[in-house]
Amino acid sequence: MDIRNEIPANDVERFYFAALEFSDAARGIIRAALAAGFEVRRKPDGSFVTSADLEVETRLRELIARRFPTHGVIGEEYPAANPHAALQWIMDPIDGTEDFVKGLPTFGSILALHYRGEPLVGVIDHPVLDLRVSAGYGRGAYRGKERVSLADLDPAAIDGSERVMLPARANFIKHRDDGALFDILTRAHPNHRIYRSCFAHACAVTGSADAAVDYGNPVWDFAASRILIEEAGGKFVSVRAWDVPSLGRVYASVFGKPRLVDSLLSHFNR
Amino acid sequence: MDIRNEIPANDVERFYFAALEFSDAARGIIRAALAAGFEVRRKPDGSFVTSADLEVETRLRELIARRFPTHGVIGEEYPAANPHAALQWIMDPIDGTEDFVKGLPTFGSILALHYRGEPLVGVIDHPVLDLRVSAGYGRGAYRGKERVSLADLDPAAIDGSERVMLPARANFIKHRDDGALFDILTRAHPNHRIYRSCFAHACAVTGSADAAVDYGNPVWDFAASRILIEEAGGKFVSVRAWDVPSLGRVYASVFGKPRLVDSLLSHFNR
Repeated sequence: MDIRNEIPANDVERFYFAALEFSDAARGIIRAALAAGFEVRRKPDGSFVTSADLEVETRLRELIARRFPTHGVIGEEYPAANPHAALQWIMDPIDGTEDFVKGLPTFGSILALHYRGEPLVGVIDHPVLDLRVSAGYGRGAYRGKERVSLADLDPAAIDGSERVMLPARANFIKHRDDGALFDILTRAHPNHRIYRSCFAHACAVTGSADAAVDYGNPVWDFAASRILIEEAGGKFVSVRAWDVPSLGRVYASVFGKPRLVDSLLSHFNR
Repeated sequence: MDIRNEIPANDVERFYFAALEFSDAARGIIRAALAAGFEVRRKPDGSFVTSADLEVETRLRELIARRFPTHGVIGEEYPAANPHAALQWIMDPIDGTEDFVKGLPTFGSILALHYRGEPLVGVIDHPVLDLRVSAGYGRGAYRGKERVSLADLDPAAIDGSERVMLPARANFIKHRDDGALFDILTRAHPNHRIYRSCFAHACAVTGSADAAVDYGNPVWDFAASRILIEEAGGKFVSVRAWDVPSLGRVYASVFGKPRLVDSLLSHFNR
């Protein structure tokens, strides 16, 4: 039995609509920051953080603490709250901050609620693209208000024309040298796109892409992706996990149309 | 002397504003097609073409023939008109048709005017992203109505964090096997993004990316890019050209911030 069935459907519904409200709040802050300007600095690892990242995470933590004071919160920019709670909100306030800073519209906000490690609710929101995908356990996946449902690929369509979202080579070499896997994936699936943000995940959910690979990222970068893909009728596989000093646990996952996910997974075992 | 100085500045201005009008017409047709739906079929080479591609090119050819009856027109979907004229309009009505079909917003319309092979005017328009870059010879480059000006990269900033827009591996192997060059470029510049449309070129013009590579494409795919980049203060180099049976001449070019362009070019000589 799926442990998530311990949560009444009414509660899932309540959490799902709360997540949409929190996501609205994030979008409002981000759009205001784009209009009014924001501060940018580099973190010790060289990655960007802006005043908008911090403002979104602070605001969402406040909203969650007020509505669900017993729930935990894990976010990219601040320490965990209620780390032993069974229900954990996980967020990346702006995923793709470098793109946000450089004027690309593909960045997004990620918000998920997990129950004992299993995802109940997931939202990826793209404020500039006006694109949101959302899902709740047993409730289906949505693009805006429209239900999305993925049809599997015909095996004959996995001929090099399949559309695969890949991480950049940077993701495969930043923690350890897994560059050979990038080379294998780009050779096997030459019709790839590389966005360096959760826009790739949203595209796998809507079917704009046939599948996506995430590589070397902490939990907040893909916390919404499994529930989104599974509720859309696709397949999600967490394929690798390892620890990185000063960052913690990072993961690799593959998700999208099931036959293509299986094909992609075969490259990880070489 | 630059041969383009043979064209009076008043004429460049007239051509530039005409190009913006033609681009408005293309945008209107594309947005209407997205709202009302459109037909999709595959060309003999397997690539997509839609009723919107054909409608945009047909309409722009009509507008150009009416306004500039002696000018030539080269487009992706129909045979050349007035092929011996000194002034040639070159267009790709929808660049990134596969993305257009699959619901990605990064496709765009490309329109350029060349004089004896040298670009006078260039426009790349993204109807869904509401993003347009445009330039006229001696008139500067613009994002919407805002002038854009590229600052060169500090040599120390070419350390792997530089943002490079690359073609997918598919582009390097579709006509002949230049896959090794893709591997070299992705290794040397791991912070790459791959969009498979002229959105990559627009990002190089605005500075959202530091440079872009175009590979294995006919003239209409990058006809606007040289004038856009040069008028923005960047550097454009056409680095390779070769003939492909049934398709004609295809090209490789590198453009963007000058020092990074030089760095990228060094990989083509290995």
